[in-house]
Amino acid sequence: MKLLEDRIRKDGKIRNGGAVLKVGSFLNHQIDVKLYNEIGKEFFRLFGDEGVTKILTIEASGIGIACITGQYFDVPVIFAKKSKTKNIDGDVCTAKVESFTHGTVYTIMVEKEFLQPGDRVLLIDDFLANGAALNGLIQIVREAGAAVVGAGICVEKAFQPGGEIIRGQGVRVESLARIKSMSEEDGVVFC
Amino acid sequence: MKLLEDRIRKDGKIRNGGAVLKVGSFLNHQIDVKLYNEIGKEFFRLFGDEGVTKILTIEASGIGIACITGQYFDVPVIFAKKSKTKNIDGDVCTAKVESFTHGTVYTIMVEKEFLQPGDRVLLIDDFLANGAALNGLIQIVREAGAAVVGAGICVEKAFQPGGEIIRGQGVRVESLARIKSMSEEDGVVFC
Repeated sequence: MKLLEDRIRKDGKIRNGGAVLKVGSFLNHQIDVKLYNEIGKEFFRLFGDEGVTKILTIEASGIGIACITGQYFDVPVIFAKKSKTKNIDGDVCTAKVESFTHGTVYTIMVEKEFLQPGDRVLLIDDFLANGAALNGLIQIVREAGAAVVGAGICVEKAFQPGGEIIRGQGVRVESLARIKSMSEEDGVVFC
Repeated sequence: MKLLEDRIRKDGKIRNGGAVLKVGSFLNHQIDVKLYNEIGKEFFRLFGDEGVTKILTIEASGIGIACITGQYFDVPVIFAKKSKTKNIDGDVCTAKVESFTHGTVYTIMVEKEFLQPGDRVLLIDDFLANGAALNGLIQIVREAGAAVVGAGICVEKAFQPGGEIIRGQGVRVESLARIKSMSEEDGVVFC
């Protein structure tokens, strides 16, 4: 998606010697809602024929993208929660996720009643790098007996193994911007 | 807002002897995006003449509502983050928030570059109870030298002190559903 690639080139900032891409000025801290709308339209173009019944994402950065995308699909959006609070009772589907950004392992969960056998679930997230979060969402959908239609990702770090791992499970992954390499000297190079 | 009150009456679940209102089937775990759209329109009706330049919320449940609302205001949406990750460098505005839901104290932060003196900021959140999160957002806006236009809240627990505390600071608070009392026997009673 040229619009997103151009925006990353213009406003993305590479930090930590090429290890971190900051897109917080438009994608995941401050949000350009018009860009989200274009992203949502593109996910609908890619997955609109798949009979999607639910959109599933994970807190926090995925929620806004998933909600805007949900307008085009006209289906409920669910976000997996990262910690058990007083507000979750009842049966839950869970998965363990290792966060490389935060350096921790955490449990994500979705209340079982929101995912049913027969649901066709589109996964949405802002980044795909090691694939840990996406893998956790896939586990949850499968535990619920529902089907994964695919994953709509804004930015894939194609030089990290997540994309290959998830596609290797037979899951369709559509990433709107795929980064081949990035460095503070040469900037971002897309696939 | 009758639509939201009716939905809470229909699908809200009261737990823990009247202490907890679960609205996870439509507001903050699974999301009815059409309801979010009506909420966003109502916030725009209430605050549309206030010259809002930024919408600020807090992760996680506020993000979707803020993004959908942002479409009506046509301004950037910012969400305050709850933990410092590798992706935040640079100067940040911070505030401490006590979470009654999670039983913890945490720091929220916004990168300084996204809030400037001259910004007119609308705060958005799903719940107002003790006012801790909203108070933290107000502190951040003021630390940045920007102005708080007001707060758009979906559900206010009017029997808890947050609304009075925040309004007592001279901040305009508009809550779309104000709960006077709730119990497992009598259900939800609105103001």
